Amino acid sequence: MSWGVFDSGVGGLTVVRALRRRLPGVRLAYLGDTARVPYGIRSVDTVRRYAAEAAAFFRRRDVEGLIVACNTVSAVALDVVEQGFPGPVLDVVRPGVAAALAATRSGRVGVIGTPATIRSDAYGAGLRAARPDAVVVSRACPLFVPLAEEGWVDGEVPRLVARRYLAPLIEAGVDTVVLGCTHYPLLRDVIGETLGPDVRLVDSAEAVADVARGRTTAPATSGGGTEHEHCFVTDAGGAFREVAERFLGAPIGRLEQVELGA
Amino acid sequence: MSWGVFDSGVGGLTVVRALRRRLPGVRLAYLGDTARVPYGIRSVDTVRRYAAEAAAFFRRRDVEGLIVACNTVSAVALDVVEQGFPGPVLDVVRPGVAAALAATRSGRVGVIGTPATIRSDAYGAGLRAARPDAVVVSRACPLFVPLAEEGWVDGEVPRLVARRYLAPLIEAGVDTVVLGCTHYPLLRDVIGETLGPDVRLVDSAEAVADVARGRTTAPATSGGGTEHEHCFVTDAGGAFREVAERFLGAPIGRLEQVELGA
Repeated sequence: MSWGVFDSGVGGLTVVRALRRRLPGVRLAYLGDTARVPYGIRSVDTVRRYAAEAAAFFRRRDVEGLIVACNTVSAVALDVVEQGFPGPVLDVVRPGVAAALAATRSGRVGVIGTPATIRSDAYGAGLRAARPDAVVVSRACPLFVPLAEEGWVDGEVPRLVARRYLAPLIEAGVDTVVLGCTHYPLLRDVIGETLGPDVRLVDSAEAVADVARGRTTAPATSGGGTEHEHCFVTDAGGAFREVAERFLGAPIGRLEQVELGA
Repeated sequence: MSWGVFDSGVGGLTVVRALRRRLPGVRLAYLGDTARVPYGIRSVDTVRRYAAEAAAFFRRRDVEGLIVACNTVSAVALDVVEQGFPGPVLDVVRPGVAAALAATRSGRVGVIGTPATIRSDAYGAGLRAARPDAVVVSRACPLFVPLAEEGWVDGEVPRLVARRYLAPLIEAGVDTVVLGCTHYPLLRDVIGETLGPDVRLVDSAEAVADVARGRTTAPATSGGGTEHEHCFVTDAGGAFREVAERFLGAPIGRLEQVELGA
């Protein structure tokens, strides 16, 4: 079985990284809509149009299942992707919600993400639907994305930024925090240190990779690595490869620029 | 005379703010390509295509002169705008270079901007062309944009970020620094404090507004304000109005969503 992974930019490569560990021999195609990143600041209509174009892109390619790594698309346009792609579609919100429900004892859960993800309240709605007594404290953390992309993942600046963003979660006494953005795993250490050892972190990239492993029918072949990956971007300008490899934690294999919505 | 002002997002509203002070009664139309912001991370080809679409947009409207407030477009696609728009076209790089040359004594000039602007070396090339002995120290400061948009413009976080970004400029002993991004005027205080009182700051938004005043033929009427402004965006989602008013320093007048490249 082969999986397509879709995100607005490089962030979804943390999902590819998590998949690679679980399914080393499986063929993966990654699409980063880097010409139109970030989705988190767009209107819902715009995000839904982009999501339909991504589904059409994978429909035309040899991909059996599709993982929506973009929290914004997962939150506001998953139905569009499901209508536009014939195979199984996984998103990051539902696995993140399930993992948070399994992790929390008190039912007090923090959710951090982009402004669009937090405004959508997709995680909060999922948590409260399964556990009506859940107390969900959400916080948008816009600076975490550029910090991750700059590689400023430790030291005083990310520590102060994390302290400022996470203060309401600490005050609310959450025992679990969902990293509701695929960029945030790069800041996992500083987020964890800020929240303290009693707070469990749920990484939605890891959570969706666990689900994908369970849904992968063909046995994984041995080996694996970049020869089984194809990375598509809509704009390969700037320092794309350098930043992408920081997210993937490994060299990028085949890289190809494509046009969506044509 | 009426001016159009074009930027990829909200940043160019600092140019509108500077124009409003100098030309209170003049009609202004602002276009922010918020559906595709930020341009600073796109490839040159993509930026040139977007710039051509913006020129076509203003060509179809009742606008006599055009100000390219986007440093990225000024640096890599000004010729495209000039070919696509019949009236005078001002950019932010040339006025910024001229103001820096007037301000510096030692010829040691710092330039800060987005990664794309810094990679283009547009300010550096302009400075060295006019003053071959100039020493130009450039630095991309990607976190300044989200700090400005978050409104984190004073306190410890912006101070630490500024110290980290500006250290090479201070070590090089520059006596003048160009704010080569329309977002940066919001961080002017913290940038100025970090560099110290002996370093002059050149704000390219102010510099281009000075040039526009000199090129405006009809006398400014008295009064002015938002009734003379029309703000067009390609995506009005998220907290656009709130962030935009922080940049403009005043309420936004008429706001309309438009489609480019159609």
